[in-house]
Amino acid sequence: MTDSQQCMIGLVFYPGMTSLDIVGPQQVFSGLPGVQIHRIWKTLDPVKTDDGMMVLPDTTFENCPRLDVICIGGGIGQPAIEDDPEILAFLRTQGSTAKFITSVCGGSIFLAKAGLLNGYRAATHWGVRERLAALGVEVSTKRVEIDRNRITGGGVTAGIDFGLTIASILYGEEIAKMIQLLLEYNPAPPFDTGSPEKAGAELVAKALEIWQVMASPYLVAAN
Amino acid sequence: MTDSQQCMIGLVFYPGMTSLDIVGPQQVFSGLPGVQIHRIWKTLDPVKTDDGMMVLPDTTFENCPRLDVICIGGGIGQPAIEDDPEILAFLRTQGSTAKFITSVCGGSIFLAKAGLLNGYRAATHWGVRERLAALGVEVSTKRVEIDRNRITGGGVTAGIDFGLTIASILYGEEIAKMIQLLLEYNPAPPFDTGSPEKAGAELVAKALEIWQVMASPYLVAAN
Repeated sequence: MTDSQQCMIGLVFYPGMTSLDIVGPQQVFSGLPGVQIHRIWKTLDPVKTDDGMMVLPDTTFENCPRLDVICIGGGIGQPAIEDDPEILAFLRTQGSTAKFITSVCGGSIFLAKAGLLNGYRAATHWGVRERLAALGVEVSTKRVEIDRNRITGGGVTAGIDFGLTIASILYGEEIAKMIQLLLEYNPAPPFDTGSPEKAGAELVAKALEIWQVMASPYLVAAN
Repeated sequence: MTDSQQCMIGLVFYPGMTSLDIVGPQQVFSGLPGVQIHRIWKTLDPVKTDDGMMVLPDTTFENCPRLDVICIGGGIGQPAIEDDPEILAFLRTQGSTAKFITSVCGGSIFLAKAGLLNGYRAATHWGVRERLAALGVEVSTKRVEIDRNRITGGGVTAGIDFGLTIASILYGEEIAKMIQLLLEYNPAPPFDTGSPEKAGAELVAKALEIWQVMASPYLVAAN
């Protein structure tokens, strides 16, 4: 895209979404020239993210313009609403015209349920790889998977790598490199446990237990 | 801290803050048992972050309880308000009793202006290292600097490393390792430009120009 073109990027917000899934790419996109970011939900009421922060959508499903990039993330609140017909219909509608159909983390499950990953390879959070495969998607274990116009990221923090990758595709490598510099994305994780392979089976099992406990209030509320 | 102790963590919100500075550690902290996170500003009115998202504080300077950890981030809106006497007074008051006085990115400038880094070593965003040094602080180029009870992170994405480090100090390595796994923090930056040393002088100069352009509306508004 050139500087003179307005690029419409839509980020779907929902209760219990993981804020870092969305804020990683959002921070990257906000550094791009001529990008307009839409934060989209059913209403403009505040939405509580899964780390407890209240955020305000600025666009509704109903009044959202045609997007160039549609993106949805994962979150602890996701399983409770991933069959929501309004969300899936919105994804389908935008997906029929968007240049790029994208997700971070468990957001790929929404895309799959909307039928947007049939015949595509997609990345997701390691904890839902089996669920994504069960939806007929070829699961990638890459941090960012590009399959034609489907661009999908792995879990949570992969959203930063994902955002920089999309920035580079939309506006070229130089601006993406500059944004990486401005975000000082020169990571030095304090531990070497960022993937299930590195963490080992015992830590994976314990982490999944914590995840279940965190997710239970959302599932109770939904049933 | 043990599971039975409530740990009060305060994140200062302000207009033009970098959302990723705060959301990185917030996402980490929200996975800790017994942590209560306060998002603090002068009022409970929505605050616009420097990537254009509206977020809602849940605590005011006035009604904020005594914090165990006080944290402030940086942002494009920061230079316009970093001498704000209310912010500095709040940091001083909480800093006099907090167990840990912390910052991410340019947030260290606020701490320095509040007199909380006198005689301490601190990390910051690479773009404000000279400004921090001019305030009499010994500047660290580490991604996370720990000097007694001052824990400071480098720019933006360093907040994730910073958050995991604090999680480990507060609750031990195992839970921090699990959170790193749940956040799939196994970074694979698409480029090798995450620090000024790696990016080189030309890209640094261009990135600083972009930064100035992004910051100008906030500075105009403040003057």
